[in-house]
Amino acid sequence: MPQTILLVGAGKSTAYLLQYLLKRGAAGEIRLIVADQTASQLPITSDQRAYCDCVDLDIFQTEDRQKLIQKATVVVSMLPARMHILVAQDCLHYGKHLVTASYVSKELRELDQEVKKKGLVFMNEVGLDPGIDHMSAMQVIDRIRSQGGKMLLFESFTGGLVAPINDNNLWHYKFSWNPRNVVVAGQGGAAKFLQEGTYKYIPYHKLFRRTEFLEIDGYGRFEVYANRDSLSYQEAYGLRDVLTLFRGTMRRVGFSKAWNIFIQLGMTDDSYQIENSEGMTYRDYVNLFLPYSPTDSVELKLRHYLKIDQDDILWDKLLELDLFSIQKTVRRANCTPAQALQEILERSWTLEPDEKDMIAMYHKFGFELNGEKRQIDAHMVVLGKDQRYTAMAKTVGLPAAMVAMHILEGRIKTPGVQIPLAQEVYDPVLTELADHGIVFTEKEVPYLGYNLEGVGI
Amino acid sequence: MPQTILLVGAGKSTAYLLQYLLKRGAAGEIRLIVADQTASQLPITSDQRAYCDCVDLDIFQTEDRQKLIQKATVVVSMLPARMHILVAQDCLHYGKHLVTASYVSKELRELDQEVKKKGLVFMNEVGLDPGIDHMSAMQVIDRIRSQGGKMLLFESFTGGLVAPINDNNLWHYKFSWNPRNVVVAGQGGAAKFLQEGTYKYIPYHKLFRRTEFLEIDGYGRFEVYANRDSLSYQEAYGLRDVLTLFRGTMRRVGFSKAWNIFIQLGMTDDSYQIENSEGMTYRDYVNLFLPYSPTDSVELKLRHYLKIDQDDILWDKLLELDLFSIQKTVRRANCTPAQALQEILERSWTLEPDEKDMIAMYHKFGFELNGEKRQIDAHMVVLGKDQRYTAMAKTVGLPAAMVAMHILEGRIKTPGVQIPLAQEVYDPVLTELADHGIVFTEKEVPYLGYNLEGVGI
Repeated sequence: MPQTILLVGAGKSTAYLLQYLLKRGAAGEIRLIVADQTASQLPITSDQRAYCDCVDLDIFQTEDRQKLIQKATVVVSMLPARMHILVAQDCLHYGKHLVTASYVSKELRELDQEVKKKGLVFMNEVGLDPGIDHMSAMQVIDRIRSQGGKMLLFESFTGGLVAPINDNNLWHYKFSWNPRNVVVAGQGGAAKFLQEGTYKYIPYHKLFRRTEFLEIDGYGRFEVYANRDSLSYQEAYGLRDVLTLFRGTMRRVGFSKAWNIFIQLGMTDDSYQIENSEGMTYRDYVNLFLPYSPTDSVELKLRHYLKIDQDDILWDKLLELDLFSIQKTVRRANCTPAQALQEILERSWTLEPDEKDMIAMYHKFGFELNGEKRQIDAHMVVLGKDQRYTAMAKTVGLPAAMVAMHILEGRIKTPGVQIPLAQEVYDPVLTELADHGIVFTEKEVPYLGYNLEGVGI
Repeated sequence: MPQTILLVGAGKSTAYLLQYLLKRGAAGEIRLIVADQTASQLPITSDQRAYCDCVDLDIFQTEDRQKLIQKATVVVSMLPARMHILVAQDCLHYGKHLVTASYVSKELRELDQEVKKKGLVFMNEVGLDPGIDHMSAMQVIDRIRSQGGKMLLFESFTGGLVAPINDNNLWHYKFSWNPRNVVVAGQGGAAKFLQEGTYKYIPYHKLFRRTEFLEIDGYGRFEVYANRDSLSYQEAYGLRDVLTLFRGTMRRVGFSKAWNIFIQLGMTDDSYQIENSEGMTYRDYVNLFLPYSPTDSVELKLRHYLKIDQDDILWDKLLELDLFSIQKTVRRANCTPAQALQEILERSWTLEPDEKDMIAMYHKFGFELNGEKRQIDAHMVVLGKDQRYTAMAKTVGLPAAMVAMHILEGRIKTPGVQIPLAQEVYDPVLTELADHGIVFTEKEVPYLGYNLEGVGI
């Protein structure tokens, strides 16, 4: 009788994960249990049901949850991040390994000693970002170090975007992930990073005006805005002496300048409710954030307030969203500005059933080796197949599925609450990901850092 | 034996309050106990000690605190706002009246039923703002209503500024109040108000760019930025049907545009610590918020980032603060950006011992009476005497002292946790304040609202 993997949570991002584990089930390597609020609606064939049980589960029903966890050897939790702790506590209690694709929470980290005592592996951050970013970066960093190199610079960017073939709006963007996270992205504190040895801080309201450009062979130009947490990677990757440390999110060129309009107006604020949002026209919604005038149009007030020139192309991006419509209305009652904005964007930026998304990741590794400054750039691009088999689901789900198998097979042994920074974890996963078309392309480029010598003052 | 008033907290803002109560003590009307961390250092003469006890008190020493409260009939708490609840609970327990100049906290409001049951008066918000603003506004609003008028518009502005005679810096501003509150003013959520029947929201990063101008006879022009909480006054003042409701803070013209530079840079952020702040030059502090460049100066990067023209006079305001100094350094270790900014401003904006501050308040009351739209504007200006006897201390302290006396004398009887909105409270206080030179000047002006008829489109 093969061992059992329990998948808890089988939402949008688990299409590939499930497909991968079902294949292993068909091969007789594992038994699979899929527990979800609506597991009975999953497209599992009757053939597959021979090795895969689907169980409808309310995660807050402790008894039901624990009964399932007891049956597993490894539990993969793809629940919303805040719910992992429920599963983790049960895994600890019943002695089960755990895999998640989410950032390690404080509560989870506090279980580390007990997890180690029981010899369990609680592997987190094995999705895309966090996940593939850790693994692909550490593989190169460890290689550079093993050759005697000293890291000087690390930059890393990830973007969930729309595939070029379906890139047909002015924003060059469609949602392939939780739209809410996109609307509030960057909030909650200043972005912090290191550039050439100096700390740099960007407040939220300037975040989308401090972008950098980037080019990927065959895919054209992108722009990057800073993530909040670059400094925490000093510790995680052992980059305490590095001069430049910068992590960011990739968008197509021009997105950020237009997105900044929403931020400047206050439309991404998720902290208060609009008094009378239900049935409010898009135009009235925009006008909430503009000064009162008995005579001037919403359009002119907005142009003047944010100093948008007559011929600035970002204006067309606003028009494309029908932002000044007197017909289209916000549906939700008492919603926050951010929720109303999300409604507006979802009407324009949703992938059609046959449309494809795209994941892009780009790393820069600057280092000194034998007295010489060098730089390696590495990038990965993955295209989705359709609305269900997205590049997002592929890159988030496959690493988690693979790590679950590797734990089951005893290839990952080191116990504790951890993230995939060790070679025993990343090497086999990256090798196997390559078989699925998730490949990094490396090239050596001149090391520039930010100190471009020879630039005149 | 006269009844006792206990003053808890005798900091900066209590100079006039104490003077007022000492006079009442000298007249044999009350006994006074002053409890403070450093009460023994207060300038109380030996004559005054016949009717005024000074007691060193650590407010967190429950037994000491309760022993004092038991001796009083009315307790005036001038502690930092968050500490009032300690005093309030004791007052409730021992059946003592309470006066504070702070906003009513949620915890305090929850005591209301019990306070009423015991027939006690817990009067809050009897300082300047909140305080004199409530009283002076309600007096006019009640009068308009008693004449059959219907309120259409209410705007109210207050500013703690420097007196014209000592207005000798480019910002036209010096601290007469807790500098920290000035640095973080406007943070914590969007400003919300009503203009001609429409809700308006301003995010923090736009707050200082949406100012209005204002003129006070004999004192010139001011500007106003919106307070966060205008909408809450609908309920408090019974202004539910009003079209325009706006509260704001007054500064001299040009302050806000320059202050906006700090906000845009992220210097007012109080949510994270700078890694290496101690001994950092002002110049390096500014550079934390600017992009890295191996060649460009901090000055040019700042001008370019925030699009400050070569000849914009706000630049001189930054120079006046020595913001680009390579000599002056931040002293505090691990401080937040806001704390560092406060240090820099305190070096420039502190009142000298003989310098005077100024308080200005301005109300606009728009209403309809007998089918006619009318408007009354009322303003008050108070000048300080010196660094100790400030206009701020006068306007914050005197109303609290007077209310304490009125409660003692049984002139304020209605029990409960309350603010000074009732005629029994505001009439005698405003009359007495006038004796101290705190006077409102009213004038009838044409009602304009914001719908200026005849403006071409």
